[in-house]
This record gives sequence, structure tokens and C-alpha cells, in this order.
Amino acid sequence: MAKDKKVEAITSMDVDFAQWYTDVVIKSELVDYSSVKGCMIIKPAGYAIWENIQSELDRRFKETGVQNVYMPMFIPESLLEREKDHVEGFAPEVAWVTHGGLNPLQERLCVRPTSETLFCDFYANDVESYRDLPKVYNQWCSVVRWEKETRPFLRSREFLWQEGHTAHATAEEAEERTQQMLNVYADFCEEYLAMPVVRGRKTDKEKFAGAEATYTIEALMHDGKALQSGTSHNFGDGFAKAFNIQYTDKENKLQYVHQTSWGMTTRLIGAIIMVHGDDNGLVLPPKVAPTQVMIVPIMQKKEGVLEKAAELKERLSNFRVKVDDSDKSPGWKFAECEMRGIPVRVEIGPKDIEANQAVLVRRDTGEKISIALDDLEEKVAELLENMQREMLERAREHRDAHTSIAINYEEFKDAIANKPGFVKAMWCGNQECEDKIKEETTATSRCMPFNQEKLSDTCVCCGKPAKSMVYWGKAY
Amino acid sequence: MAKDKKVEAITSMDVDFAQWYTDVVIKSELVDYSSVKGCMIIKPAGYAIWENIQSELDRRFKETGVQNVYMPMFIPESLLEREKDHVEGFAPEVAWVTHGGLNPLQERLCVRPTSETLFCDFYANDVESYRDLPKVYNQWCSVVRWEKETRPFLRSREFLWQEGHTAHATAEEAEERTQQMLNVYADFCEEYLAMPVVRGRKTDKEKFAGAEATYTIEALMHDGKALQSGTSHNFGDGFAKAFNIQYTDKENKLQYVHQTSWGMTTRLIGAIIMVHGDDNGLVLPPKVAPTQVMIVPIMQKKEGVLEKAAELKERLSNFRVKVDDSDKSPGWKFAECEMRGIPVRVEIGPKDIEANQAVLVRRDTGEKISIALDDLEEKVAELLENMQREMLERAREHRDAHTSIAINYEEFKDAIANKPGFVKAMWCGNQECEDKIKEETTATSRCMPFNQEKLSDTCVCCGKPAKSMVYWGKAY
Repeated sequence: MAKDKKVEAITSMDVDFAQWYTDVVIKSELVDYSSVKGCMIIKPAGYAIWENIQSELDRRFKETGVQNVYMPMFIPESLLEREKDHVEGFAPEVAWVTHGGLNPLQERLCVRPTSETLFCDFYANDVESYRDLPKVYNQWCSVVRWEKETRPFLRSREFLWQEGHTAHATAEEAEERTQQMLNVYADFCEEYLAMPVVRGRKTDKEKFAGAEATYTIEALMHDGKALQSGTSHNFGDGFAKAFNIQYTDKENKLQYVHQTSWGMTTRLIGAIIMVHGDDNGLVLPPKVAPTQVMIVPIMQKKEGVLEKAAELKERLSNFRVKVDDSDKSPGWKFAECEMRGIPVRVEIGPKDIEANQAVLVRRDTGEKISIALDDLEEKVAELLENMQREMLERAREHRDAHTSIAINYEEFKDAIANKPGFVKAMWCGNQECEDKIKEETTATSRCMPFNQEKLSDTCVCCGKPAKSMVYWGKAY
Repeated sequence: MAKDKKVEAITSMDVDFAQWYTDVVIKSELVDYSSVKGCMIIKPAGYAIWENIQSELDRRFKETGVQNVYMPMFIPESLLEREKDHVEGFAPEVAWVTHGGLNPLQERLCVRPTSETLFCDFYANDVESYRDLPKVYNQWCSVVRWEKETRPFLRSREFLWQEGHTAHATAEEAEERTQQMLNVYADFCEEYLAMPVVRGRKTDKEKFAGAEATYTIEALMHDGKALQSGTSHNFGDGFAKAFNIQYTDKENKLQYVHQTSWGMTTRLIGAIIMVHGDDNGLVLPPKVAPTQVMIVPIMQKKEGVLEKAAELKERLSNFRVKVDDSDKSPGWKFAECEMRGIPVRVEIGPKDIEANQAVLVRRDTGEKISIALDDLEEKVAELLENMQREMLERAREHRDAHTSIAINYEEFKDAIANKPGFVKAMWCGNQECEDKIKEETTATSRCMPFNQEKLSDTCVCCGKPAKSMVYWGKAY
């Protein structure tokens, strides 16, 4: 069984979580490195996850009235500079195109890091009257941010995402859309990715460049670090004023529109890995798994085995199912199924066929059960459902077990240093305390959750009257 | 009825076809111009067509075993230069990134005009043994070519496309895949876009930079000009040698892989417009139409009209159906349905309701029929099917009526000058004749069709022995 030796071990997550992550993304063949520093190649196993995310999110978007469009990938420098906070936030990390063909450009163009400015420029021309509102547009594309340190999915110079950009007649409507999309994101993470999230608002220090308010969903990774998993911004009329986006209302008066934007990225794949993965590799929630069931024939050269495997595949065609009939050994195939996070493995060999049974193995728990072949469809459906539900429950328990409360600064520092996870603590609302906490503990404010609790009356840092409860943590 | 005046007329296609095209793309709201010269904004009505193209093509690809991936959008200059013909073909028209953030790059990067070099670089690392083959990868992305003259969909500096890139163990397998994908394209155009195409091979002069053979599908637009609508290239082992992509075969010998690539773009939307459109605007084949049926309520303020419209919508939910219940006049709504190319319009008013009937209007022929409401689903289905089939037939008749035969050079020049359309003529196989024809008539060789006919023994240009029959024409 020399072949089995080729199943390369991955570093244990307890030994080195960062190395474990790298091993998993590479060995489960989600991505590869490219010749372009900081840019990744998303391989079929990784891209198929993104396709599922995209199709489900897009469906949910369209249910709320979103329409897809496509904007140019380039932004003229003068356009990027139109909104002051925005350009300050992004100019230091954009890639600049200076030549088209053999000639230098008259004005250099940046490769979009995000497309607020392009949408604003478009809306300024396209919106005339209240009849043209709301505009609820989205695009699926790639964006570029010239990051210094990069890691596959988590932080790369180019990544895939969707960016929604809306324009509304009133401030209320914009606020409603901002929160609506955050809830679409949160529900998607919980229902589809089995990933619990904290919904809340960013502090002013952490909000998006140019936004009045940024809402966020924050997930907790297995190592106790937080991952910002989706954000939704309310711009008020700030961009509208910078770009002069006005409409005539029903009384024929000129008004500025109110805008929002919201985005989710391939970073989510990193989140799936770090929330659900284990020392054998990837563990994919059934709903997002490109292959939900892998049938592994045992002693496949024996008469009738491959035929039976094909018959089972046919019977399971309501699921995303494959047969691994390659010439690798069963042991190799099992390890590969595990590495790739395939939710359910079906083992079928001559003895099983004789006994009219099969063995089902569940990826997350490793549980093995023998079932009567007659019950196949039902048992597989049940297993997938249970797995999806229990993965969410387990992730929620893990998060709750890794969320501590700090009343004073000693407790806070101790928690951040010694208890990986979120720390809930009260905050006065002043950025000096946020800065001090970041400097002294490396933790950042993740969000002011919508579900506020009153843990005490005073700021955990300065002792002055507290304004809100904040989730703090180290973050990716 | 002041509002009706706002339905802006479009230029008649017989008066000025180019202006007609521009009017249609803008007034049917498919695209808008952007602040970035030569780059278009694809608006919801345009992008929804692309989404349908994408989803249907992607489904057809996957049936043939294609897997989707994503490669970086940047290509280091040294990588682009690796294959001599390829770099000569593309370097003059790429956009160059020279700065990342605030710093100049050590090596400049071009924004991908196409991704052969990236896939080759990847395959060189990823392919080791015959077990790793074939690789049948595709990506959906945008590409950039710094064109001087641009037109929405037909030629723009950035456009959306898919690019398939495959690697095979043998030359035969690569050739088979090249032709297979061309046939996928051709079938898609005919079955889904109702657009007949000529399938054939490009001459050496017209083939892709770096390819051994390029196959093409050529469609004829309403004005008699040809549009190259999809191409499939066989690279042989040329790129494999330049990038050193080798595998060990079953006898443990090192072999070069054989490669293909194939692509279709948003240009197809231009083709749909120019094959099917008329002086009232867009005419969309039912299969690709984002909205297949528009229900227009007449006297919608009368009791029961909007309710009935909603009921009909519900009954037609197997189709992509909408109700236009805006406060515009019915006349305005009719014109808008026509401008946007919606295949079937259903008119329903108080009198119709009383008579238990509705009026169906077919976009392509303008035919109006009264139907009993009980037959609604059936009649709409029938109309859509007929329309899809007859649009293909009509386009085929138009093409055939605009395809002439030239036996000698006089006939050829006359045909190109006076008979808009394809000209079939024999060719000796020498590029001098191609060059002469292009210079003297502006026509180019579109393809050597797979269905060869022997029109005469001699080249239409030089009179020497002919090698093949060629479709010639003026082209976009």
C-alpha cells in the first residue's frame, strides 16, 4: 500500500494554527500560489465553494429586489479623489495603471479597490427624479488592494466579492436597506455556512472610509480570533454631496439621495475552514459542499461492485454525489474524502452488497453507521440535515465557551492574554480607550452588538460612564 | 398624454445602422458610457442577458466535464513574454500596472488581455503525471485590451468573457476538445440565441497569437457584416514547450502536454441586437430574454384590473413574467416593452375581463391575437416556442439571402461592394491573396467552413489552383 504514504499529514491545529490553515488550503486543493505575489489561484475545489456561495447569496439578494450590473474595473484618479475620507482610506493601497498599450495615459487609473466612486458617478447621471429611486444594484467582480502581508482567502491582493450599492430618496430607507442586507448576510452565514455571527455596529474608528455607519457580522474562528465576515455601510448623503447626486422629489424640489453599500468576499471560504475544519482537513457544511456524498467502492475489481456504486449514485441524484472509482486504494480515498471535507462517505463492497447494506461515515463526527440499502436515500438525507444543524450548534457552543466578560481593565487584559475568544466589555465611546486597548493588548473593537447588555456602568478602560457594550478581540 | 412624447424614437436601421445600434443599446438601457474612456457600464437589462448566457453556457460546459477556476488578473511582464507569437499579438494593447500603493513595482504587471500564460504557468507546476490529465478548466472574468476605437459590447477596453484552458496527454485529444467546444458554442448560438452561425477554421493570417489552429463561428448581422462570435484554439505543444509543461506517461517517459483555449464574450449581446433587432428596438429570443412576458393592465385604476393582472402573473409563473403596474400610460408601456425586446406582451383590461379574454402581442412579428383566458398558459408557451424557432429560421433565411458566390475577382469585388453579406469563394491558401483582397475590398477571410464546397478549381484572386472554399466578408 505504498500509495497511502502519499496522503500527506497536515500540521495539528493545536501545534500551529497558522500552519494548519495553510496546510488545509493547499492540501485540500482549494488554492495554489501564483507567480504574482499576493494573488492566489482558486482551484476547482475552492471555486466550486465560491460558486455555491455566490448562487445562494445572489438568490437571497434578488428576493429583496437587488439587480446585478457591471461597472468598469478602472477608476480615474480624479474620481477616486472626489470624496475625502474615501480616498484617504484607499489611495495608499491601490494598484495604478499608467500605460495603455505603448502609450502613457493622460490620467492614471487605479484598479478598483471598491466601486463607490464609480456607482456615484453613474448615479449622478442616471438619477433624475424620485421615480428613478431606489437604485438597488450589485455587482460580482474582483477587486485589488495592495496588501503587504497576504494569506489565501483571508487577505490577498486580489479577491472576489460582491458589492451592493444603493441610492434612496430618504435617510430612513437607506438605513433600512443597510440593516436589511446585514441581516441577509447573517442569516446566510448561519443557515447556509453553519457559522454563527455577532451582528453589530462598528465604532467610528473601525468604520468604512466615507461611511456614516458601518454594520458588521463577526464570526469566531477555532483559534479564538475574530473574522469580520460581511459589512454593510450607510453613507447618508455624504457621497451624494461629493458627487452631486440629486433628484427632484414629488414637490419638484431638488434633494440629495441617501446611499448604502455592502459586501461579502472569498474571505468567507477562509471562515468556513477556520470555523469547521479539523486535524484531518476541511469539514464542509452540507449545504455549501460542492460534493455532498462520495461513494467509495471497496474491492472495486470484484464483479458487481462498480455497478452497485453507480446504482447508488443514481439513487442519490437529489444530492451532489460522486463515485470515486479511481485506481487508488480505499484507505487513500477515505483520507482524501476527509481532507476535502466531503460531508458523507458511502462505503460499499462485496460483503455489503451480499448483506444488502452500506456503511455511511459522517465527516464532522467520524461516526460510522451500517444501514440497510433500502433506507439509503432517507438515511443520507437525515445525516446531511443533522450534520448541517449540529455543525452550527457546535460552532455556537464553541463561540459561547470562548466569550468572556470583563468588568475592569485587569480582567480585560487577562482575558485577552489568556482566554482566546471574544471579550465583552463596556466602553465609554472615546477613541482614546480603543487606541489604548489596541496598543496594550492588540485587541480591537469588533462591534457594538445590536443585542446590548449592561455589564456595568463604567468603561472597562478609563472607568468613565459607559455608553455601550462592545465585543473585543484579536482579529484576522 | 404628455408622457408618451418621452418615448424617444430610434434612428431607422436603413438610414444609419451604426446609429440605430447605438440608439438601441442606450435606449433599451443595456449599457451606459462611463467616465473611463472605452469602458462600458452594463446596466440591469444588459447584465440580466449576460447572466442568462452565462448560466446556460456554464451548464453546457459542465456537461462536457469543464471545471471552473479563478486566476489572478495580473500577468508579470516576463511571463507574458514567454511565448513569442503570443506576446507580439497582445503586448501592443495591454494596460500596464506600474505602481502598487505608493511604491513603484519591481516588475510591471499587465492586466490580463487573456490568460494563456497564467494557465501555462500553473499547469507547469500542477501537472506531473498522466494521472493529472486532462485539465479542463474555465474561468469567467473580465479582460482588458486597450482598443483605440470602441463600441458597446462589440469592442470595448474591458469586456466580460469566459476563457477555457485545457491540457491533454495527446494531440488527438486536444484537437477533439477544440472542436467539441466550438460545437458547444455553435449549438448554443443556434438553440439559445436563435442565431445561425457558420462553423469553420481561420486562415493562418487570422488565427490566434500562438495557436496552431483557430476554429470560429461566424454570424451575419442585419447589415450584412460578419461578427466572429466565438473561437476555439488548438495550441499543439507550442505553449507547453515555451512553459515547459511536461508529464510522465504510463511508460514513465516525459512528454509535453497539448493545449487548447476557447472563449465567448459579452460581444454576443451585440450579436443578439444586430441579428434580431428592428426599428422599434431590441427583439430578444425568448430563451435568453430576462423578462419573457410582460403583462400590461389597461385602465388599471378600474376595480379588479390589477388583481386580474396579478392572477395572470401567478398563472404564468413557469415563465419569467412581470406586471407593469407603474403609472405610465398603456401606450408608453407598449413602446417600452417593444424597445426592451420583451417577447410577449399580455394586455388585459376591463372589457377583456368581462369577455374572459386577453390580447397577446408577439414582439418579433407584431402579431396580435385574442385568446380565451382559459388557454393562457398554453397559448403563451406556444407563442414563445414559435417565436424562438421562427427567429432562428428568419435569421437563417436572411443569412442565406445575403450569401453570394464569386467565381472570379470581378464577381468578388462586385459582391463585396454591392451585396452586403458573406461571399463564398475559392482560395489558393496564400496570404498574399488574403492581403490583396483586404486591401482592395476591406473584406477579410472569415473562415474556411467545415462544410466545404467546390465552387471552381481556381483561387478567386490569383487564379492559381484553389485549396479551399472561404467565407469572406466585411466584419465587426
